[in-house]
Amino acid sequence: MNLARRATAELAGTGLLVTAVVGSGIAAGRLSPQDTGLQLLENAVATALALGALIVSFGPISGAHLNPVVSAADWWLGRRAGTGLSGRDLIAYVAAQTIGAIGGAVVANLMFGLSATTWSESRRSGPNLWLAEILATTGLVLLVVALTRTGRLGQAPVAVAAYIGAAYWYTSSTSFANPAVTIGRMFTHTFAGIAPGSVPLFIAAQLVGGALALGAAAWWYPAPAHQEVARR
Amino acid sequence: MNLARRATAELAGTGLLVTAVVGSGIAAGRLSPQDTGLQLLENAVATALALGALIVSFGPISGAHLNPVVSAADWWLGRRAGTGLSGRDLIAYVAAQTIGAIGGAVVANLMFGLSATTWSESRRSGPNLWLAEILATTGLVLLVVALTRTGRLGQAPVAVAAYIGAAYWYTSSTSFANPAVTIGRMFTHTFAGIAPGSVPLFIAAQLVGGALALGAAAWWYPAPAHQEVARR
Amino acid sequence: MNLARRATAELAGTGLLVTAVVGSGIAAGRLSPQDTGLQLLENAVATALALGALIVSFGPISGAHLNPVVSAADWWLGRRAGTGLSGRDLIAYVAAQTIGAIGGAVVANLMFGLSATTWSESRRSGPNLWLAEILATTGLVLLVVALTRTGRLGQAPVAVAAYIGAAYWYTSSTSFANPAVTIGRMFTHTFAGIAPGSVPLFIAAQLVGGALALGAAAWWYPAPAHQEVARR
Amino acid sequence: MNLARRATAELAGTGLLVTAVVGSGIAAGRLSPQDTGLQLLENAVATALALGALIVSFGPISGAHLNPVVSAADWWLGRRAGTGLSGRDLIAYVAAQTIGAIGGAVVANLMFGLSATTWSESRRSGPNLWLAEILATTGLVLLVVALTRTGRLGQAPVAVAAYIGAAYWYTSSTSFANPAVTIGRMFTHTFAGIAPGSVPLFIAAQLVGGALALGAAAWWYPAPAHQEVARR
Repeated sequence: MNLARRATAELAGTGLLVTAVVGSGIAAGRLSPQDTGLQLLENAVATALALGALIVSFGPISGAHLNPVVSAADWWLGRRAGTGLSGRDLIAYVAAQTIGAIGGAVVANLMFGLSATTWSESRRSGPNLWLAEILATTGLVLLVVALTRTGRLGQAPVAVAAYIGAAYWYTSSTSFANPAVTIGRMFTHTFAGIAPGSVPLFIAAQLVGGALALGAAAWWYPAPAHQEVARR
Repeated sequence: MNLARRATAELAGTGLLVTAVVGSGIAAGRLSPQDTGLQLLENAVATALALGALIVSFGPISGAHLNPVVSAADWWLGRRAGTGLSGRDLIAYVAAQTIGAIGGAVVANLMFGLSATTWSESRRSGPNLWLAEILATTGLVLLVVALTRTGRLGQAPVAVAAYIGAAYWYTSSTSFANPAVTIGRMFTHTFAGIAPGSVPLFIAAQLVGGALALGAAAWWYPAPAHQEVARR
Repeated sequence: MNLARRATAELAGTGLLVTAVVGSGIAAGRLSPQDTGLQLLENAVATALALGALIVSFGPISGAHLNPVVSAADWWLGRRAGTGLSGRDLIAYVAAQTIGAIGGAVVANLMFGLSATTWSESRRSGPNLWLAEILATTGLVLLVVALTRTGRLGQAPVAVAAYIGAAYWYTSSTSFANPAVTIGRMFTHTFAGIAPGSVPLFIAAQLVGGALALGAAAWWYPAPAHQEVARR
Repeated sequence: MNLARRATAELAGTGLLVTAVVGSGIAAGRLSPQDTGLQLLENAVATALALGALIVSFGPISGAHLNPVVSAADWWLGRRAGTGLSGRDLIAYVAAQTIGAIGGAVVANLMFGLSATTWSESRRSGPNLWLAEILATTGLVLLVVALTRTGRLGQAPVAVAAYIGAAYWYTSSTSFANPAVTIGRMFTHTFAGIAPGSVPLFIAAQLVGGALALGAAAWWYPAPAHQEVARR
């Protein structure tokens, strides 16, 4: 499929993912003001279900990566066999995901009657949170590789949704695990926001996690000699 | 299958969907009076699960559209190939869905010991809510088209249920996304109700969303030249 | 498979279902004393997930009816083609389900440190609750017939679990929809209990619901002339 | 696949499972301090979703047992046909699971800014809790055998996740049902912890449950004479 169709799918899909993350966070904050845990439960359920539906909606077009680390892993793993994204595809995907993510935050803000953008002031920083982002991203990318290399991409919507729904809770960082989404979440001073100053090290941790996942994948899911790697 | 069977399936299915939406809303309001967010969580979980089960129950009969916008999209997308609903089918479907939706609200009211009908007084109005309804309906119809045009209708129960469960939370309107259900929800002065005066612009927004989805579908899922479009 | 294996599967499966219903009700009542809605949410989630897992565990043995109304429908629908339960099977299934249900309540009581049996004092009575039980049972049996007559029994665990999880919320009776389980739930003076005096009319309503479902099934899912009806 | 790959998969998978159990427990305890039931709901949802995703991630490598009782059952059931784990495999699996479980607790503690290890002081003891562990483990192992012996291992992620999510609620012990995880949970003085003194009898109960499940499996799912038992 041509790159314009695929890149716009990544833009729309990542945008709607951020709309779901931010929008459900705003709703949760307003409707359940007395219990932060209940807010996170509402936010996590909505995010997981939305992510699953988005992978169903956009998977056949672009693979529904919706995440620069996933796209980079796809490029890396397929670079020898000529499967996966090309370098040019990768640049287009990451740009589309990032632009979409920012747009998705704007849509959520407007939909809930807020200014189009406000900088988040939620500081999310510290070695334990970076450890959490490393772990969350490693697990996510390893899951995607496992699905791809064993021909089970049809299970991706449920499996990836389940993973993120769980990781919201078991990581101390609530599992951003996605550089584009992290950037989008700077643009909302609400429940799901992240202060711009906390973003660079979150993204760095996510990249480390992605690299660790590629190492793990080389051990557990080495590239097949004879079999082409399916595009996610 | 003959139209009488199909239209009655749409009537019963849409009716039970509204019974689930309104009934779980009443239960939530009574049992969790202290936290509106918890009420919405209960309402969203019940609605999503009921919707999935209803698509399983009625899908093989009528396609389980349960939604005039979905039926209209089915008619529009299949009008050239002669697949999808005919114009006469569409009228019957929409009438059945609307009558069913009203009946479903009545059943819910009676089941919880209320008068058969009371007008809702919940005003739901404003540009941000209309934006939300546009977005919610666009995403829903695009999801249905994606499932149809890629031969994955067997995934519809889970995917559509997940979509609606998420959209309850991430849209500011709690995602009605369905003109028949919107009409049915006028007839209950409870958690899930909508004041009659707010209905016309909600439905208008839903129609706009449906039209946008058809545009998006033409870009991402163009009609196959050689392959018949499966009836949902 | 021989009847002893099948009947013991129905006994164990229905018993574990009641253990799940009653046990999660006790846990919910103790751990979330301040919000009845939250208790019902916990109870509904646990029941739905347990039911799905039990259908996976026992489905290949006995069909995992776990419900006399479902067994009776299976007998009725298959009586002409000689598929489905025989009359003798039906009696054994219903007896096993009922004994299992009582045992399941005993296990739950003991597991939570209560007396083996105590009579419930929860009166559940009134025309609106009976309407709810009729509706809940009609929908359940129609769903099972839809799955059976369209060759989708592999979806039964998820679909039936989703149905019950939703019906807990959208019916005013919290959807017992099962005579054996109703009898079992007399034997626990806890969240999920039902006073013995309320049981006969609950069961009567469930039987009416089952009969209505058979009528609906005759309209929407008539028996195939040429095709054998698969045993659930 | 070679044993090193498989054993490290068991180590990582069991580790991440304990990280999910302990980590989500810590998050729940901090974020929902007012309602223990809500904490358990958050903990159960996160655990079930994480478990499902882990089985998807590691199933193709090692079978994703993540549980010494499951590995022992696999060895026992396959010992005659020469399928399943060998005795040497079993020792490696159990060691890897146990080491992984402890490491997973350490990761969770660190990720949430706690000391790497602290002994839990949560006493979990008494005949009713042991009964609960017996029941929980019996049901889990029987489910796994049912999936294996009927060729439905592709359903394991959803079915096992659903089972554990339910069993957290309907057993009075919150269903540890896993000796390695039980050992790992000694090393955290948080929501999901268990005092070391309570561990031996928990594990004993789990072993009893596993043995009972093998008896039940011999009755309901006897080994096929002609058909090889698939490795989980």
